[in-house]
Amino acid sequence: MSTASRPDPTADLATDLMPGQLLARGVCRHMASLGFVTVEELVVTRGLRVDVMALGPKGALWVIECKSSRSDFITDRKWQGYLEWCDRYFWAVDAAFPTDLLPEGTGLIMADAYDAEVLRMGEESRLAPARRKKMIQCFATHAARRLQALRDPGARIEM
Amino acid sequence: MSTASRPDPTADLATDLMPGQLLARGVCRHMASLGFVTVEELVVTRGLRVDVMALGPKGALWVIECKSSRSDFITDRKWQGYLEWCDRYFWAVDAAFPTDLLPEGTGLIMADAYDAEVLRMGEESRLAPARRKKMIQCFATHAARRLQALRDPGARIEM
Repeated sequence: MSTASRPDPTADLATDLMPGQLLARGVCRHMASLGFVTVEELVVTRGLRVDVMALGPKGALWVIECKSSRSDFITDRKWQGYLEWCDRYFWAVDAAFPTDLLPEGTGLIMADAYDAEVLRMGEESRLAPARRKKMIQCFATHAARRLQALRDPGARIEM
Repeated sequence: MSTASRPDPTADLATDLMPGQLLARGVCRHMASLGFVTVEELVVTRGLRVDVMALGPKGALWVIECKSSRSDFITDRKWQGYLEWCDRYFWAVDAAFPTDLLPEGTGLIMADAYDAEVLRMGEESRLAPARRKKMIQCFATHAARRLQALRDPGARIEM
């Protein structure tokens, strides 16, 4: 987690990211080291957009909400709605966050802009097969559309 | 398919693409207009990399091989190996390609760098559910890894 020993030549790219997005970047880097792939800001259903959705090699789906401050957490009235869209649910926070606030049963990831670490696993509540199938299709669609938009700015992609 | 009426401000971005990749770009644009999402150069199994894999909204999987010339087609000894990884198989070629060469039962897409059009559907041979599930997971993983690599050049992503 220490950034002192890990100078990052791309740090300047991060200047246009919000604090929560910087945490998400670190979370996604760590998830990659665990063999998961990730997308950010995935709309799982109307009105519910998760910060990070991680997909494991065997189809596990984890939702990770990134909270940059106490007030960011306190004002979140939607998080319980995310539970039914994943096998495990996590908060990602930085070292200054008062983690006592976080509800029992949820996972905890300590993150910064460069990396992260899972401190506590979220309790498992496995998705039904039909919903998992639907969510992996949703994940694939999100990732492919955004990839095409970046690779081919001339394409007309509906997001 | 006419490009004359469709000036593209990003055309200069395409100068580092090979002829087959330019066709793939047009194919992917057209597939987006049909509600499909796409990835390019997907490895479906060891030693088999397809030019374009398209995923439909209900999970249909189409493989599209892009052939920029007669010799590009003649030297392809792998295409029959792709059939078992998709519901429908297509060739994408440009207007100068001798389409009589193409085998019966395969689909035909006329493409240029800007768009494409399906001239003949490939015959349907539906994937078994387990393979479809595996391929959609593979598609999602490919798309998410490449998206993360573009969004976060500092991440260490295994491709």
